Amino acid sequence: MATKKARKKINLAGRDLICTEDWSRDELIHTLELAEDMQKHRFAVKYTKILRDKTFFMFFYNPSVRTRQSFECAATELGGHAQFLEPKSMRLKTATTAGETIEDAAKVMSRYACGLGIRILEDKIGAYGEGDALLREYAKYSDIPIVSMAHDKYHPCQGLADVMGLRKHLGKNLKGRKLLLYWGHGALGRSWCSVQEAALLYSRLGMAVTIASPEGYDLDPEVIKTTRGHCKESGQKFEIIHDPVEGYRGAHVVYSRNWMSPGAYHDGEFHKAEEVEKALKYTDWICDARKMKLSDNGLYIHPMPIDRGHEVTDEVASGPNSIIYDVAENRLHVQKAIMALTMAGK
Amino acid sequence: MATKKARKKINLAGRDLICTEDWSRDELIHTLELAEDMQKHRFAVKYTKILRDKTFFMFFYNPSVRTRQSFECAATELGGHAQFLEPKSMRLKTATTAGETIEDAAKVMSRYACGLGIRILEDKIGAYGEGDALLREYAKYSDIPIVSMAHDKYHPCQGLADVMGLRKHLGKNLKGRKLLLYWGHGALGRSWCSVQEAALLYSRLGMAVTIASPEGYDLDPEVIKTTRGHCKESGQKFEIIHDPVEGYRGAHVVYSRNWMSPGAYHDGEFHKAEEVEKALKYTDWICDARKMKLSDNGLYIHPMPIDRGHEVTDEVASGPNSIIYDVAENRLHVQKAIMALTMAGK
Amino acid sequence: MATKKARKKINLAGRDLICTEDWSRDELIHTLELAEDMQKHRFAVKYTKILRDKTFFMFFYNPSVRTRQSFECAATELGGHAQFLEPKSMRLKTATTAGETIEDAAKVMSRYACGLGIRILEDKIGAYGEGDALLREYAKYSDIPIVSMAHDKYHPCQGLADVMGLRKHLGKNLKGRKLLLYWGHGALGRSWCSVQEAALLYSRLGMAVTIASPEGYDLDPEVIKTTRGHCKESGQKFEIIHDPVEGYRGAHVVYSRNWMSPGAYHDGEFHKAEEVEKALKYTDWICDARKMKLSDNGLYIHPMPIDRGHEVTDEVASGPNSIIYDVAENRLHVQKAIMALTMAGK
Repeated sequence: MATKKARKKINLAGRDLICTEDWSRDELIHTLELAEDMQKHRFAVKYTKILRDKTFFMFFYNPSVRTRQSFECAATELGGHAQFLEPKSMRLKTATTAGETIEDAAKVMSRYACGLGIRILEDKIGAYGEGDALLREYAKYSDIPIVSMAHDKYHPCQGLADVMGLRKHLGKNLKGRKLLLYWGHGALGRSWCSVQEAALLYSRLGMAVTIASPEGYDLDPEVIKTTRGHCKESGQKFEIIHDPVEGYRGAHVVYSRNWMSPGAYHDGEFHKAEEVEKALKYTDWICDARKMKLSDNGLYIHPMPIDRGHEVTDEVASGPNSIIYDVAENRLHVQKAIMALTMAGK
Repeated sequence: MATKKARKKINLAGRDLICTEDWSRDELIHTLELAEDMQKHRFAVKYTKILRDKTFFMFFYNPSVRTRQSFECAATELGGHAQFLEPKSMRLKTATTAGETIEDAAKVMSRYACGLGIRILEDKIGAYGEGDALLREYAKYSDIPIVSMAHDKYHPCQGLADVMGLRKHLGKNLKGRKLLLYWGHGALGRSWCSVQEAALLYSRLGMAVTIASPEGYDLDPEVIKTTRGHCKESGQKFEIIHDPVEGYRGAHVVYSRNWMSPGAYHDGEFHKAEEVEKALKYTDWICDARKMKLSDNGLYIHPMPIDRGHEVTDEVASGPNSIIYDVAENRLHVQKAIMALTMAGK
Repeated sequence: MATKKARKKINLAGRDLICTEDWSRDELIHTLELAEDMQKHRFAVKYTKILRDKTFFMFFYNPSVRTRQSFECAATELGGHAQFLEPKSMRLKTATTAGETIEDAAKVMSRYACGLGIRILEDKIGAYGEGDALLREYAKYSDIPIVSMAHDKYHPCQGLADVMGLRKHLGKNLKGRKLLLYWGHGALGRSWCSVQEAALLYSRLGMAVTIASPEGYDLDPEVIKTTRGHCKESGQKFEIIHDPVEGYRGAHVVYSRNWMSPGAYHDGEFHKAEEVEKALKYTDWICDARKMKLSDNGLYIHPMPIDRGHEVTDEVASGPNSIIYDVAENRLHVQKAIMALTMAGK
């Protein structure tokens, strides 16, 4: 926990949040504590005035239900308004087409809004990393905070929502707890952003990390390296295994989700159909009650929407150790906290 | 009218509204009385605080202008915010595709919002009744009220808006008044929801009902049975006729609108083009001034948008006995009343 | 400047704004002065209560980013809410299709909202002037103010935002200042609305006007005639030239933007591809630093989004004399002022 002294100095006004790695551990804990208080006092006047009559822009390059719902609610509950924008209708300049530069777009939006959220995933980019680069270019030219609403590399709001759930169900000291980050087979060819954010953030807060997937489903090597470093720093185990069962042993948290392979991008495109076809063959890779019995009364966690019957059985997803709805609710609270800390007074 | 004693006991907090039949007669009258007061004191502080900073979700499986405008206004005028959501971007699980279950979607939304409105009509379903089943499944899993914003079977908000208009123009006691529910020919192949809701609700409030259409345009037999029962209970006449003129005699209210035939669904699809082609042949079936003369100074009512020149002549639709704009306005007030009664305090 | 006496009498409640020509000079100055105060005191309580809990409808026949962002922000900052509506989902009656009349649509919307903004440009109409006619038909039937959010003929909010920028950078007395309205070549086949509004409004406020374009890019003759009249009235020069350089001499303001030719419409359609192909040949027609040196320390102005590299070089657009971001910001303030003056109390 952040010491009182350290906490007093925390000022996040104007800061971007593209990955939790961009913020200090104290800043993240401070955000979580505010989110927890916001959950307790959801419509308290001290919170409903923070963005009164202010505008938050949401840029959805990719559609989303949960993220849109929770961000728009968050702005509303802080007294402000979130504009739902789909940049497909923006004539942005590219290498081959006329249109507006990101510099111009960002500078004008900074005059109107108190913050900008951006979501950009697989099928809207031609290679892994392009989404992250886009967010960082917006951040470069904006005078207002940029918040990732999930992009190809990271999903900081999801990571914080997860941890808020873990703090509730496991206690605030997560040190020494074991995360199993488990590749569930599935029909959706999913992004790396949520699982990478989880690996980075959970390990940073002192958890041991086991990543289990079939061969050929490596995540971003840079993320793995950083995660391994976090584990080492806090004296925890980090491992990558390719067995569908062994990782469950002793796990306190099982995060079972599908993700794409590194080969999903080639020829400048995201090949979802190939990914799905390949992934659906691994029918052993499902989180089920039999495997969960090997865990240490492990919690089941998932960022939703869940692909039930592939990533996890109904029995586990709807079972007593599943904290999926709590985590989904936490999206609202952590996003309110992030917006309040970075955008108030703008 | 609800007696004072009965009214005191009315508590609609948390209740769904999928059809007016789901609510008691006293509950409906109570809602209308609140709507009427809300019209009189539209921006009074007692009303503008009811949903302050709360979120209402609107799910438009089918697009709409009027319904969207009036629901979003309603939330705004109660101090809250309505999110416009199009579930086409939701990856919902179906028999053949991976995605999220309604249980998961409903449980998460219950964490964010104070209520959920759903609109689903003909072309988004494969058979009559599927829309109603969908709403009831959402209601089963939600902790927040579900309100129909028009679905294949019913349109409770329209029914209440109609009656609010009748109460203004005919007085609060509608007993013994005659409704002519009239099939106007037209080019839109329209849903049964508005006319069925009218039959059920007007008869429940003591009106006599004549349904007039060409042969082959029967409505849902269950709705007809219930309507017949309501008429019988209050000693009023109920009849179904197939003459384009006779029903006008003595009518106090003429509701002229097109509706599809029971054969509109076959082979798992809604066949609009067939419906339109068939309907346009019945050129005698139009509400006009000549026929209206047979009525008892009858009011003209229609849920809008009107297909002028088919369902009704301009002379009648824009004439002195037309209450269409009042009824359209009432959508706002009754929806505010419904939201206030079911969603406040959530 | 409006005299105090004249200003006292200004009452714009209920007025439409389709072109600045529809308002008196005093009314326009009054609006600008309010916008300037709103910029200074952006979230002052006197302003954030003006449209509290009221609804403003935005009809986007054409998509837009800037206009949507600034109008929705404007409503939010006045305490109200702007509904983003795309009339493509409205079943409006046309010569050949069944649907709702504009009369019906306008009369119902007048019951719900405090104002209606409409945007309709080139590709949604079949001939120049149809957009303007549509707005005037909505105005005829509405009981609430209609505001142009850019249409084929005019763009009053942009004109006022421009002038607010000029007043800041050149002083409030614009008399005798020279505007160069310059056709920049470009790949977007742009509307006449912004440049026509600029010609009309700048000249009305006493500026001299030079319009420079290649042969074949005449604007609306009626607009030219009115602009010429304004210049004559205040004793200022008006000229149309076809040289890409000469007009820069002595200019205080350079407005460089692409616009379509009068031949863009034929056979009942807007032919964008033809326009772009033709326009891209005029590579001399670009606003650059070399030409700007001929000006009298001229400001660079553009309504954005800018087609950089065609309409203007980066050096000028991002240079010290560019006021593009200020003008873009002004959209917010003038729109707030317009809404406050015309829609408050509704």
